[in-house]
Amino acid sequence: MSLSVTGSNAGLGEVLQLFRAEPGLTRADVMQRTGLSRSTVNQRLDALLASALVVPSGEGAFTGGRPASRFAFNADRGVLLVADIGATGLRAAVCDLRGAVRADTEREIDVAAGPHPVLDAVHQLFTDLLAEAGRTPAQVHGVGIDVPGPVDFDSGQVVSPPIMSGWDRFDIPGWFRAHYACPVLVDKDVNAMAFGEQRSTYPDVRQLLMIKAGTGIGAGLILGGQVYRGADGAAGDIGHIQITVEDVDVEPVCRCGNTGCVEAYAGGWALVRDLRAAGHDVADVNGAVRLIRTGDVGAVRLARRAGRILGGAVADSVSLVNPSVIVIGGQLARIEEQLFAGIREMVYRRSLPLATRKLQIVPSRLGDRAGPVGLALLLADAIFAPDRVDQLVNPH
Amino acid sequence: MSLSVTGSNAGLGEVLQLFRAEPGLTRADVMQRTGLSRSTVNQRLDALLASALVVPSGEGAFTGGRPASRFAFNADRGVLLVADIGATGLRAAVCDLRGAVRADTEREIDVAAGPHPVLDAVHQLFTDLLAEAGRTPAQVHGVGIDVPGPVDFDSGQVVSPPIMSGWDRFDIPGWFRAHYACPVLVDKDVNAMAFGEQRSTYPDVRQLLMIKAGTGIGAGLILGGQVYRGADGAAGDIGHIQITVEDVDVEPVCRCGNTGCVEAYAGGWALVRDLRAAGHDVADVNGAVRLIRTGDVGAVRLARRAGRILGGAVADSVSLVNPSVIVIGGQLARIEEQLFAGIREMVYRRSLPLATRKLQIVPSRLGDRAGPVGLALLLADAIFAPDRVDQLVNPH
Repeated sequence: MSLSVTGSNAGLGEVLQLFRAEPGLTRADVMQRTGLSRSTVNQRLDALLASALVVPSGEGAFTGGRPASRFAFNADRGVLLVADIGATGLRAAVCDLRGAVRADTEREIDVAAGPHPVLDAVHQLFTDLLAEAGRTPAQVHGVGIDVPGPVDFDSGQVVSPPIMSGWDRFDIPGWFRAHYACPVLVDKDVNAMAFGEQRSTYPDVRQLLMIKAGTGIGAGLILGGQVYRGADGAAGDIGHIQITVEDVDVEPVCRCGNTGCVEAYAGGWALVRDLRAAGHDVADVNGAVRLIRTGDVGAVRLARRAGRILGGAVADSVSLVNPSVIVIGGQLARIEEQLFAGIREMVYRRSLPLATRKLQIVPSRLGDRAGPVGLALLLADAIFAPDRVDQLVNPH
Repeated sequence: MSLSVTGSNAGLGEVLQLFRAEPGLTRADVMQRTGLSRSTVNQRLDALLASALVVPSGEGAFTGGRPASRFAFNADRGVLLVADIGATGLRAAVCDLRGAVRADTEREIDVAAGPHPVLDAVHQLFTDLLAEAGRTPAQVHGVGIDVPGPVDFDSGQVVSPPIMSGWDRFDIPGWFRAHYACPVLVDKDVNAMAFGEQRSTYPDVRQLLMIKAGTGIGAGLILGGQVYRGADGAAGDIGHIQITVEDVDVEPVCRCGNTGCVEAYAGGWALVRDLRAAGHDVADVNGAVRLIRTGDVGAVRLARRAGRILGGAVADSVSLVNPSVIVIGGQLARIEEQLFAGIREMVYRRSLPLATRKLQIVPSRLGDRAGPVGLALLLADAIFAPDRVDQLVNPH
């Protein structure tokens, strides 16, 4: 219910949402869909036209009298900037106000170097992308950043991140406010990936579980069609669910300090550890993936075991949240055959038939672009949320 | 956004929601809160007054001119009937249209006897409650039923219930339509309990996990302030998460047919099994609870072990959905000391500090009444949902 904007601008947010959802609406369309009076619709539309959030988009069908003017959301009023920060690389993009990526670029970083060098690198890429797009910092309507760790979504602070030393409680929005006078959204990477996959490929799916199986393991939840973050931004912490594995004597120590976490058996870093212990010369997670894809018997056996262990945690998640689609992404998704077999085996063995009869378990469609794509869509929704529209129309 | 009611009744649902949320509103209050025009507000209010969903509630403050008339939701326009069906007992209640319980009653049943004898018993209690309240079947606005098994919420059918033989795909709403010409809502018992606890005791909590530890073990999830059911109504199936327990050689068989489920170690029926195997003469779950409360050392040891095993599954749930409150109900909640210690031990040991620093783990406040209380509140919300109001105002 659009009760959040009251008084003189009641209905403004609702009218803008209509234009974001459908192109080319007339005044009569808006009245019919909202139940707002003609004079209220005229006032709201005047405010949106004056602020250039909505622009004329031509005329409608001739129905005997004067043809009705049509209007549309102005996705080129400005741009959004997004950056997907990973453990070892970052990808930045400039997007229109619908969240569609117009151009993107990437470079290597080390997230453990701390916030200043990493955010300097992000800022440099943003500056380059803006120059290429022929835009100025004043035209940036929003900045979106995702990181490989838990985020307190309201404050935009990274909180207790196991692999981001130096980032705990760092004020990312404050850092960007020195460069851009616009809202800054910060989220966990896998939340953005989940939203990107859902909106791009499964728009009608209301419950989607996104698993990122890379160096670490995490999950993003789309519940009721929206990103679900939990009470403290800690939801989806599937990598640190603890399990008992029968064929080990001593539980492996995890990067989080605990022992026996799913990630400590099935994460990319744990696969690298186990392959090295078995005498293989693998440099990193990508090296492990390449070796497994060659079909080396010992390496494949380890990959299937990782799949079954991850699959046990996925099965628990299926029992608890009953999604209709599970998307697997991250570097380990490239060893699809071995990993997916293990995951499917455990999910179908363990979860109730009711929860699995229509369940799809699929690889990511967007791959490395899932983060930036989802982040831009999240950012567009946040900036044009009904309760924020007042500020866009009357910024001061 | 209230876009669901369009055309001639646009805004009707939104206006009714206002009256349900706040008593004693004037026409000007409604205009101010909705942005609807004076003429639209007058038309909607006339429709609600004509249907007696809203009634005059006196006059407002004298502000110089004629005092403004106030109006309120008419919670006594009719009644709601609800029944909480358990494995061995049922509790029925008659409620006003706000979902407040006016009278309730209970009796023993055997749910495994199948739908006909159980629903006959429900109907008898409903008939008695209506007679006591001086109401007729025509005044029943909604019937709510909860059951100890998974439900396809849209159709109201029980689906693949492990302990409800003969109920699979039974059309509960169809059965009641022979007696009452009103909507029938069917939900899983622990969903209703979760909603009752949240609305009654934690109205500001958005993410709440309700654990029912009785004969079986189940969970109800309140996410984003609403009951979360998952894609197939199978969410919250915490009792059938599978675990590996180090001190057993052969995994116990569960009532669901799988082995090693949480419930097969920590459910009430499993405690009874283990206490009997240890030579104790316990008749049922209540007998097991009584024995443990006497402080018998062997029985207490089993209860703490059950608490730790259940706690492992609760810790997984905390990692995945990050609730701010966990409510423990069901018969086993009466052995609070031993059970809660085990649950807390595992949750604080396993889950991320970020997810547990503000977490409350508390016993149920409503006890046996959580189901009926929550069911009545769910039913009231469903009946007066904005997209259904048209049918109430223009029933034919």
